[in-house]
Formats: sequence, C-alpha cells, structure tokens
Amino acid sequence: MLPDGSLLEFFDNPAPERDYEIVHTAYEFTSVCPVTGHPDFGTITFTYVPDALCVELKSLKLYLQSFRNEGVFYEAAVNHLCDVLSERMAPRRLEVRGEFSVRGGMSTVVIARHPED
Amino acid sequence: MLPDGSLLEFFDNPAPERDYEIVHTAYEFTSVCPVTGHPDFGTITFTYVPDALCVELKSLKLYLQSFRNEGVFYEAAVNHLCDVLSERMAPRRLEVRGEFSVRGGMSTVVIARHPED
Amino acid sequence: MLPDGSLLEFFDNPAPERDYEIVHTAYEFTSVCPVTGHPDFGTITFTYVPDALCVELKSLKLYLQSFRNEGVFYEAAVNHLCDVLSERMAPRRLEVRGEFSVRGGMSTVVIARHPED
Amino acid sequence: MLPDGSLLEFFDNPAPERDYEIVHTAYEFTSVCPVTGHPDFGTITFTYVPDALCVELKSLKLYLQSFRNEGVFYEAAVNHLCDVLSERMAPRRLEVRGEFSVRGGMSTVVIARHPED
Amino acid sequence: MLPDGSLLEFFDNPAPERDYEIVHTAYEFTSVCPVTGHPDFGTITFTYVPDALCVELKSLKLYLQSFRNEGVFYEAAVNHLCDVLSERMAPRRLEVRGEFSVRGGMSTVVIARHPED
Amino acid sequence: MLPDGSLLEFFDNPAPERDYEIVHTAYEFTSVCPVTGHPDFGTITFTYVPDALCVELKSLKLYLQSFRNEGVFYEAAVNHLCDVLSERMAPRRLEVRGEFSVRGGMSTVVIARHPED
Amino acid sequence: MLPDGSLLEFFDNPAPERDYEIVHTAYEFTSVCPVTGHPDFGTITFTYVPDALCVELKSLKLYLQSFRNEGVFYEAAVNHLCDVLSERMAPRRLEVRGEFSVRGGMSTVVIARHPED
Amino acid sequence: MLPDGSLLEFFDNPAPERDYEIVHTAYEFTSVCPVTGHPDFGTITFTYVPDALCVELKSLKLYLQSFRNEGVFYEAAVNHLCDVLSERMAPRRLEVRGEFSVRGGMSTVVIARHPED
Amino acid sequence: MLPDGSLLEFFDNPAPERDYEIVHTAYEFTSVCPVTGHPDFGTITFTYVPDALCVELKSLKLYLQSFRNEGVFYEAAVNHLCDVLSERMAPRRLEVRGEFSVRGGMSTVVIARHPED
Amino acid sequence: MLPDGSLLEFFDNPAPERDYEIVHTAYEFTSVCPVTGHPDFGTITFTYVPDALCVELKSLKLYLQSFRNEGVFYEAAVNHLCDVLSERMAPRRLEVRGEFSVRGGMSTVVIARHPED
Repeated sequence: MLPDGSLLEFFDNPAPERDYEIVHTAYEFTSVCPVTGHPDFGTITFTYVPDALCVELKSLKLYLQSFRNEGVFYEAAVNHLCDVLSERMAPRRLEVRGEFSVRGGMSTVVIARHPED
Repeated sequence: MLPDGSLLEFFDNPAPERDYEIVHTAYEFTSVCPVTGHPDFGTITFTYVPDALCVELKSLKLYLQSFRNEGVFYEAAVNHLCDVLSERMAPRRLEVRGEFSVRGGMSTVVIARHPED
Repeated sequence: MLPDGSLLEFFDNPAPERDYEIVHTAYEFTSVCPVTGHPDFGTITFTYVPDALCVELKSLKLYLQSFRNEGVFYEAAVNHLCDVLSERMAPRRLEVRGEFSVRGGMSTVVIARHPED
Repeated sequence: MLPDGSLLEFFDNPAPERDYEIVHTAYEFTSVCPVTGHPDFGTITFTYVPDALCVELKSLKLYLQSFRNEGVFYEAAVNHLCDVLSERMAPRRLEVRGEFSVRGGMSTVVIARHPED
Repeated sequence: MLPDGSLLEFFDNPAPERDYEIVHTAYEFTSVCPVTGHPDFGTITFTYVPDALCVELKSLKLYLQSFRNEGVFYEAAVNHLCDVLSERMAPRRLEVRGEFSVRGGMSTVVIARHPED
Repeated sequence: MLPDGSLLEFFDNPAPERDYEIVHTAYEFTSVCPVTGHPDFGTITFTYVPDALCVELKSLKLYLQSFRNEGVFYEAAVNHLCDVLSERMAPRRLEVRGEFSVRGGMSTVVIARHPED
Repeated sequence: MLPDGSLLEFFDNPAPERDYEIVHTAYEFTSVCPVTGHPDFGTITFTYVPDALCVELKSLKLYLQSFRNEGVFYEAAVNHLCDVLSERMAPRRLEVRGEFSVRGGMSTVVIARHPED
Repeated sequence: MLPDGSLLEFFDNPAPERDYEIVHTAYEFTSVCPVTGHPDFGTITFTYVPDALCVELKSLKLYLQSFRNEGVFYEAAVNHLCDVLSERMAPRRLEVRGEFSVRGGMSTVVIARHPED
Repeated sequence: MLPDGSLLEFFDNPAPERDYEIVHTAYEFTSVCPVTGHPDFGTITFTYVPDALCVELKSLKLYLQSFRNEGVFYEAAVNHLCDVLSERMAPRRLEVRGEFSVRGGMSTVVIARHPED
Repeated sequence: MLPDGSLLEFFDNPAPERDYEIVHTAYEFTSVCPVTGHPDFGTITFTYVPDALCVELKSLKLYLQSFRNEGVFYEAAVNHLCDVLSERMAPRRLEVRGEFSVRGGMSTVVIARHPED
C-alpha cells in the first residue's frame, strides 16, 4: 500500500482566472526495488495547470520522502503519484514524469498524464 | 501589495507593421519567501510581440529589483508580472516564465501567458 | 537468424486504464558487423505505451546481451527489435531508436515505429 | 539612418526549382547603444529560402561590419536587417534573429520574419 | 563537374513494409572553395526513409571523400548530394544538411529535401 | 561596517587528529554596489582545514544573507569574510573565493587565503 | 554508532609489486541529517593505492547502503569511511571525498586522506 | 600609438596586509587588424595581486573600449596592456591573457606576466 | 590466461632523439565480469613516451577486441595491459588508465604506470 | 619528404624583453594515412615563448594546408612540425600538440616539446 497523500497540503490558486503552468522538479526521490531490496534513485517532475488549488512545496517534499523505504516498481510509483495529486488537487491538467538511474546499463523514464491527451 | 509597475518605461515600437518577437531574460531576480523570510532566487524570461509599445530595458531591470525585499510566492509573482506588463504595454502576446532555485531538493518553474492560447 | 525474444519476460501493466509512456535506454548494446567481423556499439532506446503488459527490465537487458556475438546490420537490428517487442508485448505504441558509434568518421541513427504514424 | 544595404552583393540561386534553407550565423556583430554610447555585442542569424538570388557571404560580413559605429536599438537593428534583405533579395522566406549580450543581468533576443507566419 | 555517385553502393532494405528513418552523420567532409582555393570543412547529415534500397556506409564515406579536392560552393554541394542520392536510391524521403565551419566570423548551414514538404 | 560574524555558530571538529578539507559553496550571495546602489550577485566558496572547530552550515547561510542590503566592494567583501572566519574559527588553512556576475561585459573573481602561501 | 565495516569484503591485489591507483565513485549515497531528520544525498569517491588487498565492489555498495537511515554529519561520515577502510584494507594511500547536494543554496565537499600528505 | 592608460582609475587596496588575487574577465574586447582592416574580437583576463592600488572596474571597461578602432596585433595588444597596468598600478603580480576569435580555422591566445616567473 | 599480446605490431619511432608523448584512447573496450558473467564496458587510455618502438593503431584495436569474451577483473585487465605493452614495446614511460561503466550506482577507474613514479 | 617550411613567414617579436606565451590552435588540419590512403583529421596546437621572431598567422595556415594530400603518420607529422618551427623561428620554448579524430573507436594525441623538459 503506497503512501496515501495525507501529508500533502494545498493553498488557494492566486490566479484562477488564467490557465498557467507550474513545474516542480524533485531531484532526490528514492525508494526500494520490490524484487532485489536495493535502493532506487530518480528525479520526479510535476507539471500542472492549477484550478482552485496549488500544492504547497514543503508538503510535497515530505510526501515524496515518505517513499524512502517503500518497495515499489517505477511504473506503479509514477501512476500512483498521478492518481493521488489528481484526486487531492483536481488540477486542470497534470503530468508526472519519473526519470530513474542507470541499472544494468539501462535507464528508465515513465510519464503519466491526467486527463489523457 | 506587490510593486505596481510605475517604474516601467516604454518606447514606440520601431516596426509596428510586423509581428515579431522580443525575449528579455533577467538572470538576477530575487525576492523573499513569505513563509520563512529567506531569500529566493530565480530567472525571469519575458517573451512578447509588441503592439504600439516596447518596454525599455533599464526600467524593466529597476522594476524587477523592486521585488528584492518583497515577500511573495512564486506563483503570485509570475502572474503579477504578467498582469502588470499586459496592462501597461498592451502587447499582442506575452509570456512570463519564472525559473526558481533549488529548495529542499526541488526546483520550480511557473509560466503565465496573455492572452491564453 | 536473430535472437527470437524467448528471453523476454513481462509483468501486468499496473495502470491499464491510462495511456502513459515508458522509456528504457540501453547504453551498452554491442553486436558484430556482418561484413568486417568487427564489433559495433550503440545505444538502444525503447519508448512505448503499454497495453496489458510491461517488459521486465532485467529480461530486456539479457535479451539485448544475446546480440553480443551476432553479425547484424544496424537497420536490421532495429527493425527486428521493433518486430519482436510488438509481437510479444502488443503495446499501444512503440518506437525503437538505435544510435551507433562513429565508424569511418560517420555515425548512424535508425528509428522504427509500430504502428507507423 | 541605418546602413542601406548597398554593400550587399548577390549571386544566382543554383537550385531555384527547389525550396531549400540557408542559415548564416554571424558571431561578431557589434554596434553602439544610442542611449549610453557604449558598444553592444550580439550574434545575428539569417535563415532563408532563396528565390532568384542568394546573398554573397563576404558582402554580408562587410555589411554587418558597417553597423560598428552606428547608434541603434536592438529592436530597430533586427527589423532593419529584415527589411533590407527582404527588399534586396526577395527571398521566399526569411528570419533574422539577434541574440545580444548580458547588460545589467539581462540578455535580449529579437526575432523578425518575412513574410509573417 | 561534381562526382557522379558511381562510387555509391546499396543493399536491399531489410524492412520495406515499414516507413522508418535512417540518419548518417559524416563529420569529416572537406572540399575546396572555388573562389579562394582554400579548403572548406563541414558536417553532412543524411536523413532518409528507404524504399527498396539502403545506402552502404563505407561506399558513402568513399563518395564523400571524392569531394576532397573539388572546388564547389556550399549551396551547390548540398543540392548535388541530394540529387545524386535521390536518383540512385529513390528514397521515400531524404534530407541533406550541411553545416560548414566559421569563415570571417560566420558559419553556414544549407538544408535540401526530396521531395519538398 | 560589514556584518561582524556574531551570527556564526561552530561545532567541534569530529576528526581533529587528521588534516582534512571542507568546501562550502554558496551560490546565492547578493549585496549592493556602494557606488550605484544596484544589487550585485555572486558565488562564494570557502575551502578550509579545520582545527578545533567547524562552521555550522545553517549559521553560515544566515551570516551570508546578512550582506543582502550592505553596500560593499567585491574586494572588501571577500577579505572581510576571510578575516571573520579566520578569527572566529581559527582554521589550519582557509581560502575564500568570490565569483561575481557580469557587469558591463566583465566578470570578477577575488580570492583570499589565510595564512598566505 | 556508524556502520562498522563488517559488510566489507576484500580480494587479493593482483599486482602487489606495483603502486597503482583505483578510484571507485558511488553516485547514490544517502543518509539522514541528524539535526532536521531530512535525507541527505551525495557522491562518495574512494581513491586508493592497494597493498595486499582490494575492496570488492558489491560489498562496498552494500556497506554504503547501510548508511541509508543513519543520522550523521557530512564531516563525520567521510572521516568514518576513511578510518574503516584504512583499518580493514591497510592501503598504501587512501582518499575519501564526499560531495553533497545543495541545501539552503549551499553545497559541501569533505575530503579526508590516509596517511596525510 | 596605443591608448596610454590615462582613462584608468584606481582605488586603495582594502587589504594591503594580505597577498590575495583579483581576476577581471572582459568578454567584449574588439580592435582592428592592422593588416586587413577587419575587426578582431577577444576576451581579455587580468589576474593580479594588488599592492597599494586596485583598478576601478568601470574605468577598465572604458580603457578597453578605447581600443575599438585601433589597428593592433594580438601580441602587441596583450603586452601593451601588461605594461600599462604594471606601471600605473604597480601590482605584486599581474597576468594578462588574451583569447582571440577564430580566423582562417585558427584561434590564438597570448599570455604575458609581470614580473616574469 | 589473458591475451598475450602476440596480436600487437610495432613500427620504428620516427623521432627517437626526442622524449615526446603519445596518447591513444580506446572508447569501446568490453570484457566479461568473471563473477556474474555479464559484459563490462570501459574506456582505456594509453599514454606513453616511445623509445625504439611505437605501437601500430590497428593492431592495438584488434588486441583490445580479443578481450571481448574474456572473464577478467578491472584491476587485473589494466595491470595486464600495462605489463604486456611494457615488455613488448619497452617505452620510456607508460600509463594505462581504465574507466569503467556504472555498476550498482558506482563507477571505477584503475590507473597503472611503468616505471612507477 | 614532408613540406619544408619555406611557406612560413615571421615578424619581429614586439616584446622580446619579456618571456610570454603565444598559443595558436588550428582546428582544420588534414592529411592522408600512409597505409590506407584515407584522409585523417586533427587539431594542431602550437604553444611557444618567442625569442626574436613570431610566426605570422596566415603563413602558418598555408603551411598547414600544404599537408592536405601528404601521406604521413601522426607521430611523424607532429615531430616534423616541431622540428621545422624550432629551426626557423628559434623560440625559447615550443610545444606542438596534435589531437586526431576517432579511427576504429580510438582517438590519438601526440605531443612534442623543444627543448625537452
């Protein structure tokens, strides 16, 4: 069961009359591989157009830190973050992009969007 | 109350018969976090198509410097700059893009456009 | 006869209700030039939208390693990888991109997509 | 009064039956700020599709050098270059892009096109 | 009279049922300026979608080397390469892009396509 | 009168038996030009071998922030930082290096050491 | 009490008759700040001249992973790693260099050597 | 006769008791080739240890601008700058380094020091 | 038993009266990990001062290719290459430097010299 | 028989009383491989301290161009350039450094000095 987003806090969008973009890039995401138990490292980028709410930066950092000792596949982590933020913040648009470190000579990127194009 | 743009000066567009683009990138924007009181740092990029007026560079620099000791959220600063320049200069198109320094392992970009796409 | 993909393993897509992208970049692909017998080196990037299945990373690495002593042209290798992954995994979309090292002062890139645009 | 383009020379387009692109990038443009009298520096890039004529490279260099001691705003210089080359060479398409050095912590880019999109 | 392409060799496209792209980048093109007699240097990039034939890499290298002591303008060289490869290989699409070294503080790029957009 | 260092805090060197190096790089230093009143921006790097004490990072950040509205020349700021840290912390060796933004097409670096070589 | 190095394994130096250098760079070191409880991230580089023993790579990775949930200052972590490897492996020379992520607009590097210069 | 340095201004060294380094890098130096009459472009870097005097930045910029229409060889310009600054400022050490743009596929650097090593 | 160097060929040093340096950098070295059986990748750099003989480039390439399916530790491979080239070519000085790809978030460099410093 | 340097011209050193450095970097050197007949490409850097004479830039360019169709090994070309310039110009110190393009996955650098260190 991945962290449920209760750590997240939000503030009122200061310009709800305008469609504009916010991009938060978190360079220090780490979780644990559910198969090998070894740590994984990655960068998570959130790109969104707010509606009534914006996510508060410090709470977003703490929420991401709560994955530190969770066992989770890359594909599941990115989709879970997209689901939780969509439900809690109801943005006009959201993209979550995870870029993960090289393992066995291979790097991985996973990108989820809400709503889909 | 953020700086109201009275510092800005304008000159006549030398080629009003043509739609052309002007991009000013200000590398040394700094303001103060309204929550912690610590300074924030960022780069602000203005991309616009002028109509009757162009913004004068030195006055733009001085206007941006007037945010130096203001407490303001990233989202509010970028939207305010977009509002002030749209009202004072009435460009055919304007984009304001703020790229802010790493805080807690996370960087932020905010992008507002006038009129919206 | 190029490796037939029996080394590949798959797992269930954790978010089949959403169209999202996965990108695996393998930096250490090597095969043998069928004309000269000298080794070739390249980077292979797989970009896909999964349907029912996702490819398991370690099995993808082992499959790519099985080309190590195969004689194959760049154009044939990239198209073969595109064919095998399309058949085994049935993705909604797939692109395979091979970027190969400089030979005789010339580098080569080959890009195949399924289905075609 | 900016330089009128009489220094420019042209040669016959060797492939007028085809729409193709030519890009000239001049790294050493310098003129004088009309307000402060200090020198300004920039890179000017010309991207065009020729019709009957191509601009001769050496004459283009000499024409650009003739701005060396002219007082001119960035916006006016780029639009003037676009006007002069459009009139003298009658290209199918032309873009003039000026990228200017940092002044007061701010850099500027101006881009003009003929005909407009 | 520029080299006529008789040095070029071709092999059967291994995947003619698919539209896919091949990009060859030759970093060591050199010819002679027809005006001054001085050597010119450039990078030539061929991007194409093959139909029945693919160009063989070593023969392409030898063909490009045959320009070494030819006097030719940039614009003519790129257009000639586009003509010869279009005729000999009959690709579905071809772009030839030449990027040439700085001369007099100015660099040049020439791009030709077959068929045109 | 520049900030006197009373904001700085120190902790006991965890390995005083060994000569080892510590490097702190502060990317967000800003002060005010004493002549023009315009803000200056720079990066300050402290490289030292501790003796009994190490400087605490957060207090160093706060101390540097206290220069924000001070009018000070680059040369004086760097020498003052070197003096204050030498007196308060008594390191075995210290270098203070300030790298300042471009002004009028010119950048500046100032480097002070204690004790001198 | 920091991890004591019992996870480390060693193998016989294959060329003990020669002084040669080995450099291992671990890009994914993470521990916890003992003051704030937030995670820290860094790169640790070990440069050594082996005597009778070389450290086995996989055991070094596991040993570094055991710091994942330890609260430790940068200065203490680097000195501890230098002590443990010096005692267990008895190298002819060893340098441990820790480069840590930006915190509060400031990055930190700590370098310890055994024996000292 | 090259500009004699009367434009230069100096201020008192704020830390004459210490040997410390100052580096000014001027990115926009331009003069004229005495043979061809074409403009030359370069970057000039001054590295010095002040004694009683430091050079004032704005006067240095204006002094360098006074070479704008002078015909001078690279080797002579750098040695002249080294002579003038040594005589007027009497630094403990001075290096003048000129890096000049590509001409005919060749770039040039000239470095003079006072006193010599 | 690692490849014994019989593939290497040499030619007479064209300037034996002078001590000068030759550096060959091979970007495509690959061997097999003796523990896991997985392929390893690296860059090998040979820096030497020739005495009577220089190594012929093509034979060096072929010799390095002969490690392709050998199981060997990094430390042993670099020392072996240093031994073989020292014996066969008797250089005045030789350094062999191997830089190996990231494995488990860690990269490795091994450097051997003959004679030792 | 390599080009004998009769194309080179020299001018009087404008500052013979000082030891200062001149660095010319020629990015467009090309010659022919004496074994395969294929062209080779490289960058040649001359670093010298002049005595009575400096080499004139345009003549140096023409001299280097005269290697265009010569068959010569890298090691011989660099030593020959060092010999010719030492004899003709009698510099206080000279280094010639040739950096050559990748061939067979391997690049080469050759460095000769006069007098030797």
